[in-house]
Amino acid sequence: MYNQSRVIIENITPLINCGEFPLKSVVNEIIPVTADIFADGHDVIAASVLFKHEKEKSWKETRMHPAENDQWNSSFQVNKQGFYQYKIQGWVDHALNWQHGIQRKIEDGQTVNSELLEGAMLLEVIIEGAAKNDKTFLLDCIASFRHPGAYEKATEMAQSDKLHRLLVKHPTKLLHNESQVFTVYVDRLKARYSTWYEFFPRSASDEEGKHGTFKDCERLLPRVASMGFDTLYFPPIHPIGEVNRKGKNNTTVAKKDDVGSTWGIGSKLGGHKDIHPELGSLKDFKDLVKAAEKLGIEIAMDFALQAAPDHPWVKDHPEWFKWRPDGTVQYAENPPKKYQDILPIHFESGDWKNLWKDMLDTALYWIEECGIKVFRVDNPHTKPFYFWGWLISEVKKKHKDILFLSEAFTRPKIMHQLAKQGFTQSYTYFTWRNSKHELIEYMEELTKTDQQYFFRPNFWPNTPDINPWSLQSGNEAMHLQRYFLAATLSSNTGVYGPVFEQMVSAALPGREEYLDSEKFQIRHWDWEKQNKLTTLITKINMIRKEHTSLQQTKNIQFLSIENEQILAYHKYSDDREDETLMIVNLDPHYPQNGWVQLPMGELGVQEGQRISVTDLITGSSYHWDKEWNFVELHPALPFHLFKIGK
Amino acid sequence: MYNQSRVIIENITPLINCGEFPLKSVVNEIIPVTADIFADGHDVIAASVLFKHEKEKSWKETRMHPAENDQWNSSFQVNKQGFYQYKIQGWVDHALNWQHGIQRKIEDGQTVNSELLEGAMLLEVIIEGAAKNDKTFLLDCIASFRHPGAYEKATEMAQSDKLHRLLVKHPTKLLHNESQVFTVYVDRLKARYSTWYEFFPRSASDEEGKHGTFKDCERLLPRVASMGFDTLYFPPIHPIGEVNRKGKNNTTVAKKDDVGSTWGIGSKLGGHKDIHPELGSLKDFKDLVKAAEKLGIEIAMDFALQAAPDHPWVKDHPEWFKWRPDGTVQYAENPPKKYQDILPIHFESGDWKNLWKDMLDTALYWIEECGIKVFRVDNPHTKPFYFWGWLISEVKKKHKDILFLSEAFTRPKIMHQLAKQGFTQSYTYFTWRNSKHELIEYMEELTKTDQQYFFRPNFWPNTPDINPWSLQSGNEAMHLQRYFLAATLSSNTGVYGPVFEQMVSAALPGREEYLDSEKFQIRHWDWEKQNKLTTLITKINMIRKEHTSLQQTKNIQFLSIENEQILAYHKYSDDREDETLMIVNLDPHYPQNGWVQLPMGELGVQEGQRISVTDLITGSSYHWDKEWNFVELHPALPFHLFKIGK
Repeated sequence: MYNQSRVIIENITPLINCGEFPLKSVVNEIIPVTADIFADGHDVIAASVLFKHEKEKSWKETRMHPAENDQWNSSFQVNKQGFYQYKIQGWVDHALNWQHGIQRKIEDGQTVNSELLEGAMLLEVIIEGAAKNDKTFLLDCIASFRHPGAYEKATEMAQSDKLHRLLVKHPTKLLHNESQVFTVYVDRLKARYSTWYEFFPRSASDEEGKHGTFKDCERLLPRVASMGFDTLYFPPIHPIGEVNRKGKNNTTVAKKDDVGSTWGIGSKLGGHKDIHPELGSLKDFKDLVKAAEKLGIEIAMDFALQAAPDHPWVKDHPEWFKWRPDGTVQYAENPPKKYQDILPIHFESGDWKNLWKDMLDTALYWIEECGIKVFRVDNPHTKPFYFWGWLISEVKKKHKDILFLSEAFTRPKIMHQLAKQGFTQSYTYFTWRNSKHELIEYMEELTKTDQQYFFRPNFWPNTPDINPWSLQSGNEAMHLQRYFLAATLSSNTGVYGPVFEQMVSAALPGREEYLDSEKFQIRHWDWEKQNKLTTLITKINMIRKEHTSLQQTKNIQFLSIENEQILAYHKYSDDREDETLMIVNLDPHYPQNGWVQLPMGELGVQEGQRISVTDLITGSSYHWDKEWNFVELHPALPFHLFKIGK
Repeated sequence: MYNQSRVIIENITPLINCGEFPLKSVVNEIIPVTADIFADGHDVIAASVLFKHEKEKSWKETRMHPAENDQWNSSFQVNKQGFYQYKIQGWVDHALNWQHGIQRKIEDGQTVNSELLEGAMLLEVIIEGAAKNDKTFLLDCIASFRHPGAYEKATEMAQSDKLHRLLVKHPTKLLHNESQVFTVYVDRLKARYSTWYEFFPRSASDEEGKHGTFKDCERLLPRVASMGFDTLYFPPIHPIGEVNRKGKNNTTVAKKDDVGSTWGIGSKLGGHKDIHPELGSLKDFKDLVKAAEKLGIEIAMDFALQAAPDHPWVKDHPEWFKWRPDGTVQYAENPPKKYQDILPIHFESGDWKNLWKDMLDTALYWIEECGIKVFRVDNPHTKPFYFWGWLISEVKKKHKDILFLSEAFTRPKIMHQLAKQGFTQSYTYFTWRNSKHELIEYMEELTKTDQQYFFRPNFWPNTPDINPWSLQSGNEAMHLQRYFLAATLSSNTGVYGPVFEQMVSAALPGREEYLDSEKFQIRHWDWEKQNKLTTLITKINMIRKEHTSLQQTKNIQFLSIENEQILAYHKYSDDREDETLMIVNLDPHYPQNGWVQLPMGELGVQEGQRISVTDLITGSSYHWDKEWNFVELHPALPFHLFKIGK
């Protein structure tokens, strides 16, 4: 209860759950900090943000500046991976207060002999911490302030800008107050900007009916790279359970040659640290990871913590599963539904600490043994939140490069909590946001609220689990539009490739699921086939690589256009060196046109000033010198991706 | 980092600065609590608020209920003064989850033998903590669940409402999670509902030119009581400094018989623990406090921590003041302005702990020696915030009844911080909020944001420091309107009486200050005079006493009326037993009329249903059976104060 400081520091922003969780950032980003800071009385106060990387010993300092209504602002840059710490200091600045006062008094014609002596005393404290070349001037000030004959010189020096700068530079933080220490977790750039491609390795063979292998995958790498993808995500590659195995189209009974669900992990052939023999050997997988790396591709591994009934864990660690009173092991259920091919891990187990450690070991095995750097985590929302918080932080203690994508399509607060616990990126509701209103509302929520500091969206038009209504018609314009939106609204994007490119959209009747889903059977794809979709996906991905404005998500501004079927938005790099303008026709059937309003203020241009807009897709260039400009888009090519030139 | 719980509890509301400061309440109020609560997976969860008075050992429990979007709600009642503590618990409720599951499976036609056995195991745990008369039923359940021949009875019992109620009543909080402990400070009712009157004791004489005394004040008590005031606030009653004493109208040089500012405290006659001899003796003051108490009036004392240059502290505790290099003591200044009659306390003093303790002793002296229960604190925003936090909490440790009114008319965040540090009530911007828009906006801020939980407004139309522009014309309708607004918008209200009642509104030219202010001279008032203002103030105060809807501030709802000069609002008691409707003409010169919309939903009435509205000022009654009703108000009586009857 005893605190002699006179300064209050409160309402610090941004904070996640009052500072319980770190903000998220990537290397070289700027972290904004604001706080309400004030003192009793009328004295001049000052404030700083102190920050440092967790491995650094001494704090760096950046001064805060007052804005409106006692709010102070500042920011700092993070330039290394790992945790940064920061805190705010505030103090009554007696030296600045003295200078402010003596200036007012001199202007008022008062004699300030006593004030000059007071100044000399203040400077004597400051001089101790001052740089050598500053000391001369300070000593000169002190001498003048104390020399009765130097009144004119003394008052001039007292009021000088030079002295003011030195007082700011060497604050005496008497009785300063300090906030608690907050944290930022800094990832590598890929956390913010990534382009994912997904296919099933077992469908990678060029021979129809044959089980694909890692060697087949290796053959496909150049194609994936040439299309501009940097992350290749595979569904689980572990041995598939044989007990209660699912048949094609999720039927309960598998036929003899059914290959089962890749997510039904574990059999007598091994578990989460093993490779499904039909895909190849561990060496084949390591070779694949290395070959991918050479092409700039990281293999993302599926981390799916569940077991088939014949997973080795069931025998080796029966205490990691729940057992029913009739002596059978508890399968997954959501009454009245039963999923007898899947055993959930019993996280309420008494042996939970060993269980947690083994899961961590599994992740570390793939990281350390095979060079895996990215995990797509399956259904994280059916495992305890604190488990993820622990596992991710333990992994990052040893390997800061590792990224985790949360595959949770569930209620918003659950998705947010997983992100707070440490998931690098998250699947989103984008898959079901189609109208202009829905898209703008969702983007504003992701980018203009505190979500921007902890929830990194990754936009997918489809996944093996979701064949959305919007794509089921097989309409080409809709496929083009959905990829374009995913890849230009969000800097993290991904696509379940083969079906999407070929617009294979047949669904189970009345459901958003693929017919003959690769989840339960091998499919054969013509990997050589090129079409408008593959061409434009490639083009969009390449434009993303060259344009930093498209490498972050939160720097977005929606533009006015009086047509409910056209969405227009502007993105910019932090340094404003790169600015792009996206205009999309959301109507998959008809041309649409309208007048789009340029964000003149944001662009820093005046009405009448000419700017150029170059469509990076077609190469066409236009000159615009008005605030409102006419655009028309045909479903055959339903978007502009303009680079803005001034 | 290790926490096996599966439940997350976050985003708890209301909280002040993330729980750093207690919520404020008064005896018998209901505290609302909401939080986002959820678990991984699909299991049924449950949550409770646990709460207790600081002196109690065991927690009381009230269950929370799920609303939308994973938010859960509850509330609890506080019924004793002092601190309450509360926290939230959440857990996966295995028993309820089991019942939910078995019901779905039975409906689906599944056989549930194993589930019944599982239920028996769960009940065996629950039965240990169950009440005696619940045990019989639970034992019966267990027996049936385990009896192969009792399948039908068992499934019936398993699904029964009775069992459900017992499972809710006796939760097994396996691996529950818990929030931190938060606090509420509970005051007596007067913190929320009080009616203040202010006059200067030295102007209380009935003989013009004579210095008033406590005996004179005692004579005036029946008048104050009969007008319905419950708190009588006096400016400082201590010896007044003689060095640099201010003259009439704040002139720098006092004439021989000038009495000085009552806030220039301390002289050779004594300091903050002494009484100005011309007012009488300590015994006279004690007699006055007792006499007031008999009439239901509490004397509010001014707590003004500053010193005249001849205050005994300057000699006895020179280290409590700042000294200039020229050896003189530092007077108050706001450069270039100087206030040589006032020495600020130097809270940065090295002897600050003794200083703090002495200030506390001063407050305790008046509480314990004279029975003072209310302090109006002068300019608290020029003393450190943490000092107030400490002083108020130390006082309340010994005397929970004590109330502190913060006299800070300054920037919003400073006023709020003082309230957070513990001030019971606060002066507000009401004094300068005149238009309909301003009044609604300000009331919404006070009552619909988190301010409602820490900032208790006290509305004053005027004070000795503020003769607002709105009252300077001396217009009677404006005076009537301002008192009515103060007393019906806010449940805490006060008035600097003599000048207000008599509409003495002469101001220093161009300033919101009274001419010939009592702050610097004795005035003479005709205390017997009655007029429309005294009559209506009395009436309004009496109505407030009888109508609980007017005894709190936050239960307010503004009503639509298409006239910018008419303000209409509805207030209600928590139990809805008392509902009032206020309609005010803000135009001091002309009659105004319009159609006011009744809040049908809030009132729980239907279009066509007849309600009665009785004007408690005039006694007139009307019957309204429409949603929109015509009202007209004349400046001669510019308001309705309707009691609503259904």
